[in-house]
Amino acid sequence: MRFLLTNDDGIYARGLSALYEELSAEADCLVVAPEIEQSAVGHAITISRPLMVRRATKNGKFLGYAVCGTPADCVKIGIKELSDKPVDLVVSGINRGSNAGINVIYSGTVSAATEAVFMGIPALAISLDSHKEADYTYAAQFAHKMVQVMMKNPELNNSAINVNVPALPPEEIKGVVVVKQGKGNIMESFEKRIDPRENIYYWISGESQAGKEAKDTDVGALAQGFITITPIQSDLTRYDLLDDLKKIMTKRSII
Amino acid sequence: MRFLLTNDDGIYARGLSALYEELSAEADCLVVAPEIEQSAVGHAITISRPLMVRRATKNGKFLGYAVCGTPADCVKIGIKELSDKPVDLVVSGINRGSNAGINVIYSGTVSAATEAVFMGIPALAISLDSHKEADYTYAAQFAHKMVQVMMKNPELNNSAINVNVPALPPEEIKGVVVVKQGKGNIMESFEKRIDPRENIYYWISGESQAGKEAKDTDVGALAQGFITITPIQSDLTRYDLLDDLKKIMTKRSII
Repeated sequence: MRFLLTNDDGIYARGLSALYEELSAEADCLVVAPEIEQSAVGHAITISRPLMVRRATKNGKFLGYAVCGTPADCVKIGIKELSDKPVDLVVSGINRGSNAGINVIYSGTVSAATEAVFMGIPALAISLDSHKEADYTYAAQFAHKMVQVMMKNPELNNSAINVNVPALPPEEIKGVVVVKQGKGNIMESFEKRIDPRENIYYWISGESQAGKEAKDTDVGALAQGFITITPIQSDLTRYDLLDDLKKIMTKRSII
Repeated sequence: MRFLLTNDDGIYARGLSALYEELSAEADCLVVAPEIEQSAVGHAITISRPLMVRRATKNGKFLGYAVCGTPADCVKIGIKELSDKPVDLVVSGINRGSNAGINVIYSGTVSAATEAVFMGIPALAISLDSHKEADYTYAAQFAHKMVQVMMKNPELNNSAINVNVPALPPEEIKGVVVVKQGKGNIMESFEKRIDPRENIYYWISGESQAGKEAKDTDVGALAQGFITITPIQSDLTRYDLLDDLKKIMTKRSII
């Protein structure tokens, strides 16, 4: 089995390293990850400049391919060009910080997974709910379990699965739930300040509403200490509105 | 009426200017747009650094607020802080290049629209299918028509609408269709090269499969010369797999 590992925190990130250590027991893992942190995630693919690719090492040992591009670039070039054998599964993470609610749309970690599915390869995205460097061991072990589930259930072959793990000691994790994507709303406010050169700037601040979200969503369940599992796809169409909109447009003679 | 206009090509982009000219006839338009092109679109919101905001001018006249942030930042700070009255509608664009198929997920233009809906404001995202600078006049006029439709139909109040306009002379446009999001697959290949310092790099190249996509999708219809209209939302959950996945996880005693 060949797994392709990637992330959006960069090839030297601790979360990716934890994933590699754990999953190497299961399969032949090839790391293809961004050279630098993609905190500003780019477009699906980099087309206006070439992708520089470098064999990255750590302590003199081959670590993987470092790509000057986005996580989706890494998945594409990894599958099409860099892997010397067919890729069976793409695993993206372990992301530093959760990817739940609307953030799923903006996440490079999750983008890598949806890109893989576009290329016909099942994928797992996994994130740890802490923006500080935390212990990735348990999340990596859970990724391992999920990978085994995915390998054994062919109905998941054409799917991306998004997993979020609370940053809690394992004994404090309340359980595992399969849930839909939530909102991730934040009660926001902007604090206006003046810099030493008299320019205006703003800090966004706000209070997470995660605790108020329903338990059957990723945001709500994660906030309560559950590991969340959400099958995802990339179609944003609001199907419930499609027919109404057709009628409206026809009535107004725009169609 | 107050419209908030934004984009991801930057405050001085021609597509935004065309939109402003056209929509000013309909409402009091306030421009809040990224200071520089967000070709690498950031996260939903910028939280690790402050947002610099500048009153931008053009030929000595107030143009709008330039924000050092993402399109979603612009929508948030525009609605919450910069607009001196309640915003009735957010219009994002006119983007240089289409936003159809999977690209919808990576698009800053569309992100601005989904962000607006999260804040309770209806939104329109509009893109012109040309990566070269083309004539935005007709697309702006079409945006105007769509805005009128949205204002007159309260059932669209909580929705984001994604519009793509072919870069054709108006008389060659085949019509307007309401369609679902397509795939946007590209048959890709990577061309390996060596730079003068003997580093390896790759150019991605590929042939768009747009022409092969079904007519009832944005990608397919746009390729055939239709203006496409797609109502969008931000929930990526694969609902068809939710119950199956619960059963699988329970069977394997992971839940």
